[in-house]
Amino acid sequence: MCSPKVLAHVQKQLGQQLGKRVSRRDLFKTAALAGTTSALLGSQTARADGHMGMSFSNLVDLTHTVHADTPVWPGNPRPAFDTVVTVENDGFYSRNWTVNEHTGTHMDAPAHFIAGGTTADALELSNFIVPIAVIDISEKAAADPDATVTVADIEAYEAKHGTLPAGAMVMMYSGWDSRFDDESAVQNMDADGVMHFPGFSGEAADFLIAERDISGVGVDTLSLDPGNDASFSTHVTILGAGGYGLENVANLSAIPAAGAHLIVGALKMEDASGGPVRLMAAWG
Amino acid sequence: MCSPKVLAHVQKQLGQQLGKRVSRRDLFKTAALAGTTSALLGSQTARADGHMGMSFSNLVDLTHTVHADTPVWPGNPRPAFDTVVTVENDGFYSRNWTVNEHTGTHMDAPAHFIAGGTTADALELSNFIVPIAVIDISEKAAADPDATVTVADIEAYEAKHGTLPAGAMVMMYSGWDSRFDDESAVQNMDADGVMHFPGFSGEAADFLIAERDISGVGVDTLSLDPGNDASFSTHVTILGAGGYGLENVANLSAIPAAGAHLIVGALKMEDASGGPVRLMAAWG
Repeated sequence: MCSPKVLAHVQKQLGQQLGKRVSRRDLFKTAALAGTTSALLGSQTARADGHMGMSFSNLVDLTHTVHADTPVWPGNPRPAFDTVVTVENDGFYSRNWTVNEHTGTHMDAPAHFIAGGTTADALELSNFIVPIAVIDISEKAAADPDATVTVADIEAYEAKHGTLPAGAMVMMYSGWDSRFDDESAVQNMDADGVMHFPGFSGEAADFLIAERDISGVGVDTLSLDPGNDASFSTHVTILGAGGYGLENVANLSAIPAAGAHLIVGALKMEDASGGPVRLMAAWG
Repeated sequence: MCSPKVLAHVQKQLGQQLGKRVSRRDLFKTAALAGTTSALLGSQTARADGHMGMSFSNLVDLTHTVHADTPVWPGNPRPAFDTVVTVENDGFYSRNWTVNEHTGTHMDAPAHFIAGGTTADALELSNFIVPIAVIDISEKAAADPDATVTVADIEAYEAKHGTLPAGAMVMMYSGWDSRFDDESAVQNMDADGVMHFPGFSGEAADFLIAERDISGVGVDTLSLDPGNDASFSTHVTILGAGGYGLENVANLSAIPAAGAHLIVGALKMEDASGGPVRLMAAWG
């Protein structure tokens, strides 16, 4: 929550920075105008015991292990791991990694597609612990690898689970994660070199940005866009709005469609276009 | 919580009221100054419906940004970032990283010192969301760079805050993180090539393993052991018991000595001896 102490501090600091006194009312008016005063104020829901901030019963890993044969985007370099020293020979074990920012389960920061966009290291922490919504299109994806998450899929999800919560990471579960030990099955390329795997339709991306308040979108495939879409319209829409993407997400079938929180462990490499991440889902 | 949408609205409205553009960074800087960045960002507060498993008011980054001049252990390679494509030339931006597993804010997995020890990718998730205990030895470290966390320091901590909770990550705060933009100050090497920075004493490590139930130990310096200890006894004791280490931890002075939870975003690189991590602390 935004405690009184913090708000007082914000008032004072903003006042100093802006050369003008900022009243508490100023802060609240702005939020009130958005009809979301309490979002700024934060909930007063302190835990009964007052000190443990995190309670959940389930914690699931949404991350594929990265190894030398991890499926990559066509043309991207494979990750390489060079052993520098070993316990046996040197008393300790250490390696150097050479890895592309878009390898394994990874983030696409806004800067991946947007000149001047936010880099991964500059994303605020508030993006990294967010509600997850899992939209399951595995049935239609099994029948058609070009299947996409449509606006109708989002509406069907909301009819069942309620409106997407503020800050949600909207995840597509297509069933593609089960192919992850086989690069050719992941890329699913036809004779013309066109890939066929599911993703978000451009219309769905437009809807999510225009009509909802999301952190970004995630997929269990190589790309936010379907494999046969060379326009990258979902990338451009989501990243262009300051959201971020998560690709090659694992185990989305093992978490609830609504009610879990995503924890994003994103490295803090200066100026990064993204990077491998550790993703965990917590709920219950 | 303070959603991106609300923050955007606050920025805009404040900007209009104050006749000056208010950046997102301005808003966050103010809170960061108070050591409570996420108090402004808002909590992932549990809702009445009980779906939310995580409620906290404060979220602080404990991670240094890694860049080409990041201080490294003597002899370790510097991280290198090679730009492969750019938005301007290619439509999207991507880089390759070459980085040692022990760079920046990073993990030492048991396998770093123990032949056959658990590798970073094989550590259970239960290690990655744990209580943090911060033992502040900054006063004596300011007077003596060879200062260590002793058993007496742990006992003094427990007299004030209670017995270390099960699964705790026990963190040394020595004040060394403020040197992190200057490699020579971080290494603090004398004319004989011996480094001088604080760490855990071997006796403290023995005590923690024998008498307490911890996940591991963390430091705001280059090593779990003090810089002048060539025996690496703390590494061997902690990692030998299946615990793990965290080194070059940032911002430990911005979180409470007791009551916060650590969130460890550790990459899942096969067979890793450790690796750069994203660390966050949540509480309240």
